[in-house]
Amino acid sequence: MTQQNFSNSRPVIALMTDFGIGDGDVGVMKAVIAGITPYAHIIDITHNVAPQNVSSGAWILAASYHYFPKNTVFICVIDPGVGSTREALALHAGDWYFVGPDNGLFSYILSEQPIHAAVLLTNSSYHLSTVSSTFHGRDIFAPVGAYLARGLTDIFYELGPSVDPDLLRRLEVGGAVRDGTTINAHIVHVDNFGNLITSIPLTLVPELYTVSQVQIIFKNIGITVEKLRQYFAEGPDDGQAFIYGDSSGYVGIAVRNGNAAKALGVGFSAPIALITSER
Amino acid sequence: MTQQNFSNSRPVIALMTDFGIGDGDVGVMKAVIAGITPYAHIIDITHNVAPQNVSSGAWILAASYHYFPKNTVFICVIDPGVGSTREALALHAGDWYFVGPDNGLFSYILSEQPIHAAVLLTNSSYHLSTVSSTFHGRDIFAPVGAYLARGLTDIFYELGPSVDPDLLRRLEVGGAVRDGTTINAHIVHVDNFGNLITSIPLTLVPELYTVSQVQIIFKNIGITVEKLRQYFAEGPDDGQAFIYGDSSGYVGIAVRNGNAAKALGVGFSAPIALITSER
Amino acid sequence: MTQQNFSNSRPVIALMTDFGIGDGDVGVMKAVIAGITPYAHIIDITHNVAPQNVSSGAWILAASYHYFPKNTVFICVIDPGVGSTREALALHAGDWYFVGPDNGLFSYILSEQPIHAAVLLTNSSYHLSTVSSTFHGRDIFAPVGAYLARGLTDIFYELGPSVDPDLLRRLEVGGAVRDGTTINAHIVHVDNFGNLITSIPLTLVPELYTVSQVQIIFKNIGITVEKLRQYFAEGPDDGQAFIYGDSSGYVGIAVRNGNAAKALGVGFSAPIALITSER
Repeated sequence: MTQQNFSNSRPVIALMTDFGIGDGDVGVMKAVIAGITPYAHIIDITHNVAPQNVSSGAWILAASYHYFPKNTVFICVIDPGVGSTREALALHAGDWYFVGPDNGLFSYILSEQPIHAAVLLTNSSYHLSTVSSTFHGRDIFAPVGAYLARGLTDIFYELGPSVDPDLLRRLEVGGAVRDGTTINAHIVHVDNFGNLITSIPLTLVPELYTVSQVQIIFKNIGITVEKLRQYFAEGPDDGQAFIYGDSSGYVGIAVRNGNAAKALGVGFSAPIALITSER
Repeated sequence: MTQQNFSNSRPVIALMTDFGIGDGDVGVMKAVIAGITPYAHIIDITHNVAPQNVSSGAWILAASYHYFPKNTVFICVIDPGVGSTREALALHAGDWYFVGPDNGLFSYILSEQPIHAAVLLTNSSYHLSTVSSTFHGRDIFAPVGAYLARGLTDIFYELGPSVDPDLLRRLEVGGAVRDGTTINAHIVHVDNFGNLITSIPLTLVPELYTVSQVQIIFKNIGITVEKLRQYFAEGPDDGQAFIYGDSSGYVGIAVRNGNAAKALGVGFSAPIALITSER
Repeated sequence: MTQQNFSNSRPVIALMTDFGIGDGDVGVMKAVIAGITPYAHIIDITHNVAPQNVSSGAWILAASYHYFPKNTVFICVIDPGVGSTREALALHAGDWYFVGPDNGLFSYILSEQPIHAAVLLTNSSYHLSTVSSTFHGRDIFAPVGAYLARGLTDIFYELGPSVDPDLLRRLEVGGAVRDGTTINAHIVHVDNFGNLITSIPLTLVPELYTVSQVQIIFKNIGITVEKLRQYFAEGPDDGQAFIYGDSSGYVGIAVRNGNAAKALGVGFSAPIALITSER
């Protein structure tokens, strides 16, 4: 009984930063949270977003957030403008809450979810008593996220004044453009295995599973593959690149038992085109 | 009282993968778990197993699992065959439960522990509603592990049909062969300090602590050391390699205040021979 | 109600090691803790302290500990002398408890906090039943920390005999020496962004915010900057280094949207001088 009550009310806080895990900064954010909401369940998305790469962080968040329980509070800090005039933000979007800088990090959330409310984090009674100019993750975002996880809608509007969601910063994200059988896009993520994830939603190329031939064109190279593979072990044995449906819902490019990014010399943000055709 | 009740019933879930910590995939697995068993205590073994290196993962798990509390559920995903015909598995072995692909990852467990039960994970009511072809960690292993942590033996046989443990895949692991005073083996792990852990159980060479001389032979080099050192600070000052009893229970090779793997140019899976002798 | 009781009594254990996160050793320490104090909230400071670099670990701990809740138990293991004659230690200092080797790792704590008590960890009933010579993190420090988190002052003096805090090992830490307008110091940390943190407390150079010019002198290079920047986005656009007040309370050196350590070719422990002047 008691356990059930407890378990049902244990709030989840998800963290994503570009702080790395070598500095103690992530530990300090968790220490601040533990001082405010000790019973929170803290889950790391990643702290290894490429330093200051807001669009990479935005994509990783986009691929993750909808697997988190309802009412999860996301504290996201990829924040090259920390301390400057960029605003600090809390969003209530879809079933979740998001806290972080207003620099485009929430671009996918803003385009994919209904925005119920957005506020600027100006009320210093929800911040640490001393706020530095260079570590708002510790001084503003962690305490605000922890208070939010504790009180949710009860305190949301106390965090600061409402802001029109249309005024929030958005990156040009995604950006797969289809023209007949040609789809122009770019690489939005390179995963731990060197798989290249493109900005092409699988839903944009429904014929991928049935077409007899697909060309992948990078800046300097063209690759022709026969068809979409359903899983990695189905890929060709010879080290050739192949196309697959990534678990994020986007078209991916892989090399079986190998590293596609290294094999092809392609990385984050590289332009790519796909051309589907019948042989 | 209440606290005591809670604490005693808090299930432990241990995670081991080769996903790295840069992609958000580990966070997503924890999100799935939090949605099913929010009060679980999740412990990361490591997510930096060398990509797709099943035998390396098998060894790391072997060196770790017996320190975990009774009834811990291990979710282990080093899974190059994801989506193909390889089976998904849950094991009840010794005092613990193990969930992951049937590809040899549990080889040490199978040889070291009594197997109480093994089932194939075919019952989709314990999976996410949509199962991808490339991320069973998220779609099958995380939810199965979370349900198991909640219900244990009550639901074990609901996960899918029983399978004969003798039919499960086993790697050739360990493999230290003693012939008189010569032991042929290989390197099963290189740790964070560059120490080389061999496949030689300390129990196989009881004279290591008393013999006057030991030769270590790698492919291209032979090293003679005087005797086993009990701890690192006892090693020679001059950067020479020495033998020690690793905390995993196996013979290790180290360089004091240095990196043996780099100094000797030796890595994972390298063959090694030890020859003990009196001077 | 129940939840409140629980939350208020959930002990926090903070971990810092140089074990890296690839070996499973950190997971094993958490497993040992979970077996003793399952309801503890474990927070990682970092496990990526440079291998065997006690002074680097000491600084990271110094920059972190005061953000942790009262009664947090810190288990800190950067321990090149493991198994030798170096002592194992528990400290009650300020509002916190610290467990680890007596090798200087707690130097900043010893100089910054009142020491209420210090004991040597000789009572084996608080250790694992088998203690290895090379992994006291698992065999001594994790169980002692877990018992301490459960019992605190009730068991502190049972851990072993008291030791005079004045006899504990201290590193020469910090070490910023001011002579007129020249401050001689060194680099105590390089963070994830390549920012160089110096051993100069911001309080030692109050004129940094008002002076018209500052010279930074490294071994081979002199850099002249105009004045302290308050935040990163205020730094010069042209890739030049600038000085800022780091969130740790020390003077830092950064390159806007760049990596100062790489740009300047400077790393951990490098000597540095600052000279303030009016133009």
